[in-house]
Amino acid sequence: MRKDWPVKSHTRHVPQGHRAHSTRLQSDLTQISFELVAECPDTGARAGLLHTPHGTIETPVFMPVGTQATVKGLSQRDLAEDLGVKILLANTYHLFLRPGHELIRKMGGLHRFMSWPHAILTDSGGFQVFSLSGLRKINDEGVIFRSHLNGDLHTFTPESTVDVQLAFGSDICMVLDECPEYPVTHEYARQSMHRTVRWAQQADRHHRLRMAESATRHALFPIVQGSMFPDLRAECARALLDLDTDGYAIGGLSVGEPRALSMEMVEATRPILPRHKPRYAMGVGMPLELPEYVARGVDMMDCVLPSRNARNGYLFTSQGRVIIKHARYKDDERPIDENCQCYTCRRYSRAYLRHLFLSGEILYASLATRHNVRRYLDIMCEIRHAIISFSFPEYLRCVRSAPSDAE
Amino acid sequence: MRKDWPVKSHTRHVPQGHRAHSTRLQSDLTQISFELVAECPDTGARAGLLHTPHGTIETPVFMPVGTQATVKGLSQRDLAEDLGVKILLANTYHLFLRPGHELIRKMGGLHRFMSWPHAILTDSGGFQVFSLSGLRKINDEGVIFRSHLNGDLHTFTPESTVDVQLAFGSDICMVLDECPEYPVTHEYARQSMHRTVRWAQQADRHHRLRMAESATRHALFPIVQGSMFPDLRAECARALLDLDTDGYAIGGLSVGEPRALSMEMVEATRPILPRHKPRYAMGVGMPLELPEYVARGVDMMDCVLPSRNARNGYLFTSQGRVIIKHARYKDDERPIDENCQCYTCRRYSRAYLRHLFLSGEILYASLATRHNVRRYLDIMCEIRHAIISFSFPEYLRCVRSAPSDAE
Repeated sequence: MRKDWPVKSHTRHVPQGHRAHSTRLQSDLTQISFELVAECPDTGARAGLLHTPHGTIETPVFMPVGTQATVKGLSQRDLAEDLGVKILLANTYHLFLRPGHELIRKMGGLHRFMSWPHAILTDSGGFQVFSLSGLRKINDEGVIFRSHLNGDLHTFTPESTVDVQLAFGSDICMVLDECPEYPVTHEYARQSMHRTVRWAQQADRHHRLRMAESATRHALFPIVQGSMFPDLRAECARALLDLDTDGYAIGGLSVGEPRALSMEMVEATRPILPRHKPRYAMGVGMPLELPEYVARGVDMMDCVLPSRNARNGYLFTSQGRVIIKHARYKDDERPIDENCQCYTCRRYSRAYLRHLFLSGEILYASLATRHNVRRYLDIMCEIRHAIISFSFPEYLRCVRSAPSDAE
Repeated sequence: MRKDWPVKSHTRHVPQGHRAHSTRLQSDLTQISFELVAECPDTGARAGLLHTPHGTIETPVFMPVGTQATVKGLSQRDLAEDLGVKILLANTYHLFLRPGHELIRKMGGLHRFMSWPHAILTDSGGFQVFSLSGLRKINDEGVIFRSHLNGDLHTFTPESTVDVQLAFGSDICMVLDECPEYPVTHEYARQSMHRTVRWAQQADRHHRLRMAESATRHALFPIVQGSMFPDLRAECARALLDLDTDGYAIGGLSVGEPRALSMEMVEATRPILPRHKPRYAMGVGMPLELPEYVARGVDMMDCVLPSRNARNGYLFTSQGRVIIKHARYKDDERPIDENCQCYTCRRYSRAYLRHLFLSGEILYASLATRHNVRRYLDIMCEIRHAIISFSFPEYLRCVRSAPSDAE
């Protein structure tokens, strides 16, 4: 099912049938483009290429999280050269507070500031406002919050968070959304979802104005919300569809709900979101869940789990988890994972890593993160290969039959 | 003054005049060898080659400190490939307590355990017993101390610390010594020095027995003590000379004394220590002091300053220090040091490093340490080049005329 042409987004203002005109407009308005390479006929899992101003990314892709303009413990060389990472996520909330978007703009944007040559996606800051900020007050205009660093008051509006992300120079920006906690009532979820849609419309308008006067290209993805209610999820996706953006995110997952519900929410949007646009499930997931999201049409994912768990001593391997502090590893000469080709596994034993962990050494965090991120990237490679070679359903069966605590 | 033959140590049992026999015995008993490459006629500063079972080291050399079998924040690849480090120091006290020398022996020794292909020097643990351990009781047999980790009681004797270091497989071991605090009375310093000499004699005997039955080679350096009394320093050096070991260390410096005194203590031993053996000044120094020690005949040094100061935000540059948290660096696009070729300086700005430092990010420690260690190694390169090109006195004048707070 290989396709050799990029499937570009259509603009909503172009009437059907005017292909030539439409194509010209597309190249003017498309900030990034997505090329479907293969689709699994059974599940709808997709392999694609996401073309951005900072390079092309093979999808499905897992994006390591660089909260403060750094993936904790890894250098940009580790990421780009050792791990082959082509796209990172950075957090707008954190970088807005410190060092500030104006400083980053002055330093030539986030790519230059953090010396990262490949693509960057930034979230809108909404999620962190809700999870980290002490005080927050939400109204139709936006959200007022206190910095968790120094208590200063700030406001995020749909327009301002676009501007902040454009100051970063993000390849892919996210709209401000409200991410409700779990559980909430249907009524609250409905109102909140409608606000998220209105914010997305405002952000999109603002973004189009900014892009009309911009020499550089930056995509904007709206975010499907609706808590754990399939009808609201579907309604939200349909409403956002009108914006005809370059891609769509599915937010509000991994907020404490059972995993089956998360999957159901992704399912609910699948028939609605356009096939030729990338779909990004935000903040997911555990290794065994990655293929499940892909099986539901997801192309992009991010999660702090590989890096955070690494630092906490929880290592993911092809044979299950390794809790490195366990005494059984104290004289274990094997690498974390004998099937892994990362620098850590090529060079260091579990015994040495355990010693570094127990000694609180920085090198532990760095080596462990390198391994865990590599494990995630390896899984994504396996998934992509399975889709392209038409063996994804088999791959999925295999993953599902693994012991549930395997990873 | 290039010499193409290794100048090897003579054994004390070989009578003068029996060169052939002596040479054979030397190759049996010499654990490492030292080759003088050039000597500054004015100062006596030396450039040499230290041949060890894990490679040859250009001297004068600065040895980064890998306390817990890791130089904090750097991977072994960073050290060996990026920085070109050929010899590391590790701390016997720390590794004895955790993970323990028997575990390290079981794991094939310290080189294999920490995946380090080049040479390792270990101290005897004496200094840490005196500086870290809560309780310590010293007598002629050795020192009883409590672990700072869990309060367990342990004993170090001159013989046991040799055995611990041989379990590590250190290329260069140190004898157990008593490192008196500063200041102490002449009488205390004299008694303590005599104990250190007796311990060195015991350790040396034990080491020779062990080497007679060992398939691998490990040198043992005794340590000149004597607090800040030149007569005691000289007496100590003369007494240790009898041991005819492969090298000599000068300990008990950097314990709070004025720097002029440290230099004077090194001076006091210079005419006594054999010209053809390496001399190691333990635990020194600041960048501007490195050439001063070399000017007094020192070949080897180690210090936690480059790594510890890096983590604390204190960066050494060819133009003076950079305290990275200072507001003046917040939008400074320059590297830490425009004259430095380290990975950090080739890729990151002061502004980004300041952001990482203020955010408490691991990557800061790693990048800053990389730079500071490189600065020390660059200084050693300059010094060695100056000695070989007979321009060391000029180099020294230049260093001495720099502002005193330059580094």
